[in-house]
Amino acid sequence: MSRRRQIYEGKAKILYEGPEPGTLIQYFKDDATAFNAQKRGSIAGKGVLNNRISEHIFTLLGQIGVPTHFLRRLNMREQLIRQVEIIPIEVVVRNVAAGTLSKRLGIEEGTQLPRTIIEYYYKDDALGDPLIADEHIAAFGWASQDEMNDMADMAIRVNDFLSGLFAGIGIRLIDFKLEFGRIWENEYARVILADEISPDGCRLWDMATNEKLDKDRFRRDLGGEAEAYQEVARRLGLMPEGEASSVLDLDTHRKKRGK
Amino acid sequence: MSRRRQIYEGKAKILYEGPEPGTLIQYFKDDATAFNAQKRGSIAGKGVLNNRISEHIFTLLGQIGVPTHFLRRLNMREQLIRQVEIIPIEVVVRNVAAGTLSKRLGIEEGTQLPRTIIEYYYKDDALGDPLIADEHIAAFGWASQDEMNDMADMAIRVNDFLSGLFAGIGIRLIDFKLEFGRIWENEYARVILADEISPDGCRLWDMATNEKLDKDRFRRDLGGEAEAYQEVARRLGLMPEGEASSVLDLDTHRKKRGK
Repeated sequence: MSRRRQIYEGKAKILYEGPEPGTLIQYFKDDATAFNAQKRGSIAGKGVLNNRISEHIFTLLGQIGVPTHFLRRLNMREQLIRQVEIIPIEVVVRNVAAGTLSKRLGIEEGTQLPRTIIEYYYKDDALGDPLIADEHIAAFGWASQDEMNDMADMAIRVNDFLSGLFAGIGIRLIDFKLEFGRIWENEYARVILADEISPDGCRLWDMATNEKLDKDRFRRDLGGEAEAYQEVARRLGLMPEGEASSVLDLDTHRKKRGK
Repeated sequence: MSRRRQIYEGKAKILYEGPEPGTLIQYFKDDATAFNAQKRGSIAGKGVLNNRISEHIFTLLGQIGVPTHFLRRLNMREQLIRQVEIIPIEVVVRNVAAGTLSKRLGIEEGTQLPRTIIEYYYKDDALGDPLIADEHIAAFGWASQDEMNDMADMAIRVNDFLSGLFAGIGIRLIDFKLEFGRIWENEYARVILADEISPDGCRLWDMATNEKLDKDRFRRDLGGEAEAYQEVARRLGLMPEGEASSVLDLDTHRKKRGK
């Protein structure tokens, strides 16, 4: 088999040319970065887990009518996706204060927000993905008003769906990041959900213990990153039988690692 | 005369109890701060000039139907204003990229923006007045949607008016900051323009030379701060005859100071 042409390499994924026009192959790496890639590392098996988790969630979202770029999973680390023109905006949906929102606005982590907040960040690594407002998006033409409306509507639907999905497995959806892309149909652009949904871009807290089951374990050197991702996959019913029976105990894990 | 009760002391102004209920006295200091008060200093005569400049602009805005808190100037450093409930949002209107916008979004200073941008910052010194989006304002109830609409409408009107006013005296209005407050009339709140409009909160560039005639001279250690404020007042027709004839030459000024 001839070497596939690489289209783009990001911090956690690589995009290759797909088998047909209009398709790409999305490869999930184990690489993990945080704080605009100032912190780098890897989480063993993350790529495999995120590939499965994202497949699962995008499939479910497709079933409730949220259009996504996902076509099918190809193997352990790869999925076939539709090629889109990525909109250079990260859409962050927040239900509970955490991370940069807590820091910027002085609100204690874990505080339930008075209502869900949608934030937009300009996708630009060199600038550190700065927070932007609708005004900046309109002024610089990063997305049209129709596209903004479509993204906000989809973000709310995804939030409602995921809040329920995770609540059903004892997980509180604190916040998450979405990316969207344009596909062109007869000279008419339509916005669909792109990228991935996984513990890399979500904050997921165990409802009973507030234990973090997401990339904050890596960001904050809490240990047990791989086990946390496995636990999310396990609760979603995505782990093989043998592993599914093992109940995660992150405290024990930390003690073993001497933390 | 008995000592007046001080209501509030800010970085550049002090508010005292006014002579009648519902009024305050706004006193303009020479104190100057920048970068969230990490840099402190003073600009000789600034308070006197800003009192005059702000009186002039608020009076003109009142004449075109923009409601303001300004009642009348009392003396060199004081004006009588209506007491308002300050809305904790700084409204920044930008016509040309400069300052934090240039830094955050990587746009060279002096670049004309594709359209005017209105930004909102949460007024909180301890947090460094962070940029916020409509979403944060709605979620935390800092202003109602009606108030946001009123503030945006007034901000656009003020921008149009000031752009013309300054263009008429050879000055390019790069950006400026506004604050608004609520007044209660029969249990009904109305939003009016508050605070001040002066070279402290505006970026004003000479159209011919791009020379800065605003607080950036202080922020960036350019020298000639007092002369720049005087020049704005002079062009607005607010300086006494003797001083009005002296044409500012900031280059000469800098040379004198050995910069």
